[in-house]
Amino acid sequence: MGDTQAVLPHFHAIIPAGGVGSRLWPLSRADHPKFLHDLAGNGNTLLRNTWDRLVALAGADNIVVATGVSHAPAVRSQLPDLQPDHLVSEPSPKESAAAIGLVAAIIERRDPEAIVGSFAADHVISDDEAFHRAVTEGYHAAQADWVVTIGIRPSEASSAFGYIHAATPESIEGAPSALLVSSFVEKPDFATATQYVASGDYLWNAGMFIAKASVLLGRMAEEKPELVAALREMAASWDSPERDRVTDRLWPELEKIAIDYAVAEPTAAAGGMVVIPGDFGWDDVGDFAALARMHSKGPGDLAILGDNTMVLSDSATGIVVSQSSRLVTVVGLDDIVVVDTPDALLVTSKEHAQRVRALVDMLNQQDRGGVL
Amino acid sequence: MGDTQAVLPHFHAIIPAGGVGSRLWPLSRADHPKFLHDLAGNGNTLLRNTWDRLVALAGADNIVVATGVSHAPAVRSQLPDLQPDHLVSEPSPKESAAAIGLVAAIIERRDPEAIVGSFAADHVISDDEAFHRAVTEGYHAAQADWVVTIGIRPSEASSAFGYIHAATPESIEGAPSALLVSSFVEKPDFATATQYVASGDYLWNAGMFIAKASVLLGRMAEEKPELVAALREMAASWDSPERDRVTDRLWPELEKIAIDYAVAEPTAAAGGMVVIPGDFGWDDVGDFAALARMHSKGPGDLAILGDNTMVLSDSATGIVVSQSSRLVTVVGLDDIVVVDTPDALLVTSKEHAQRVRALVDMLNQQDRGGVL
Repeated sequence: MGDTQAVLPHFHAIIPAGGVGSRLWPLSRADHPKFLHDLAGNGNTLLRNTWDRLVALAGADNIVVATGVSHAPAVRSQLPDLQPDHLVSEPSPKESAAAIGLVAAIIERRDPEAIVGSFAADHVISDDEAFHRAVTEGYHAAQADWVVTIGIRPSEASSAFGYIHAATPESIEGAPSALLVSSFVEKPDFATATQYVASGDYLWNAGMFIAKASVLLGRMAEEKPELVAALREMAASWDSPERDRVTDRLWPELEKIAIDYAVAEPTAAAGGMVVIPGDFGWDDVGDFAALARMHSKGPGDLAILGDNTMVLSDSATGIVVSQSSRLVTVVGLDDIVVVDTPDALLVTSKEHAQRVRALVDMLNQQDRGGVL
Repeated sequence: MGDTQAVLPHFHAIIPAGGVGSRLWPLSRADHPKFLHDLAGNGNTLLRNTWDRLVALAGADNIVVATGVSHAPAVRSQLPDLQPDHLVSEPSPKESAAAIGLVAAIIERRDPEAIVGSFAADHVISDDEAFHRAVTEGYHAAQADWVVTIGIRPSEASSAFGYIHAATPESIEGAPSALLVSSFVEKPDFATATQYVASGDYLWNAGMFIAKASVLLGRMAEEKPELVAALREMAASWDSPERDRVTDRLWPELEKIAIDYAVAEPTAAAGGMVVIPGDFGWDDVGDFAALARMHSKGPGDLAILGDNTMVLSDSATGIVVSQSSRLVTVVGLDDIVVVDTPDALLVTSKEHAQRVRALVDMLNQQDRGGVL
């Protein structure tokens, strides 16, 4: 049973390719961020996987990537079929509302009927067909002017993800599984996560948004009118010689805000948001514990990323990332995390994987930028 | 209060410099064994420290070093004052009875009245004066034909060392603290070690032996007559042009046995052995847990060997050995052992430090000799 996904009319995919992935240091670096790594272990970068997954829905000509200006060359090299004017370089980091909003505004001018779907460049998804089914439902709900998100059916009680509370079916043509979103909730503690999952009324928030470009920007404008006015002014000059002049003037002043706060939460509060439950494997690979989970073949299997002939361990769990040519040996430690790179080594445990971000902050403070 | 130790007449020190220190891999290597490392952190190799400690007792002209043929150049370079004919190269490893016995037999021929004292090249001793006092007592007991050992007064219940059971004072001129040795006991479990230390009747076996050369060889001959006959035959030709021919003929056939079994245990069983309690800091630095203990400034202090500006850790205990130019980071792990060298990395815990030997065995089996 192959994937017979057809390209969806007027559907445009947005791939925000931002974020270093600090908690994956020293694997992820400022100049080689998470989306440029083969974290799924299939020989391709996460960015390339994201592209391949979206081409079936949007077609290669209807995908726009937003990335930091320093990563533009790497993105082009990863995505040779990306249209030259479909790479939006952000002069400086401004968070997701500005990045996605600008691309939506550019697409809106190029195709006033556009339905946009935004999908992060650095997530791992294991079942493309199920992903395509969910996005297709989301596309149909977006046609009916909903702002749509894809929520992942939880496979466990995780405190590493935010949740979407959605219990009431919403009747929408072409989107039979749509549920009205009551609210978004931040990463809960483990006990709360357990209750959420047991109730069956919560899905993982995977940060995927689908809406008409005009609806998305309209919702954003209700919350942040100045931001959207600036984004639309930039978009108006984008495909003209004025682009750089306008961007240079407006971009530095843009408000830094996540699209979750600028669109998703207020829209949900106003009863304008539905979620399509996604029954596919998904992970945002937020830290080495997530990477260990993804790459372990099961309980009692140490995950190894890199040349496994250079890793010798009697540890049953955890992860070794081998990126240098050295022999890595681990004796008697469970849930260990060892990340070996040519200029920096990290040793921690799955339990403390989230603390790597604080370590990176400390390295920054100590002016050890050379390894970041 | 300086150390006014005078050279002891006819006293000859033997320094067996053998043993790779497998449990200190990848710091110790076959071509750079434990005794060539600065494990005391004072800028000198353990071998050099051993030499300096013994010069005061024996004089530079009365110290003989026995080492593997491949380490002879490094030993000479470490000990420029070592007499050219005082370096005994072992053509192949034959354990301590052959190594120490051959040197004792050579010394016996050069000085029939010799009293020999054998002290490993790779132990750490913190109070030279107390060491000198103990050895001087041992020297006097050896003059009265005893085989003597120095036993270390335990500072804790350690299961990492063998013990000497000795409760009965033995009246010997010049050796007021001598105790008759009842028996040697192998490394006990922790509960047994606790009982030993509480009883006050047990000392750590530091593998130090003092005796007249003739007495030592005589005791060894009672147990292993063929071995001693061969050693004395080699010694007879040692300072002649026949040395290589005789050595080549006899050495390969020598029995491999530790001096503990060939001399110490049978002599103790026959009532011929006394121990001088040593009240000095001592460690055989058998594994990284020992190295961590030695180099920690106290509870809550991570030991760092190497460039500590290249180590960033929030771990309160354990040890990081930094021998590469890489940044080493450790997050949230107590009692951790990280040994970072240019071609091999070890990650373990103090608890499992003894298992490093098994790892080295495994590397040998896998033909990864390049890193051993």
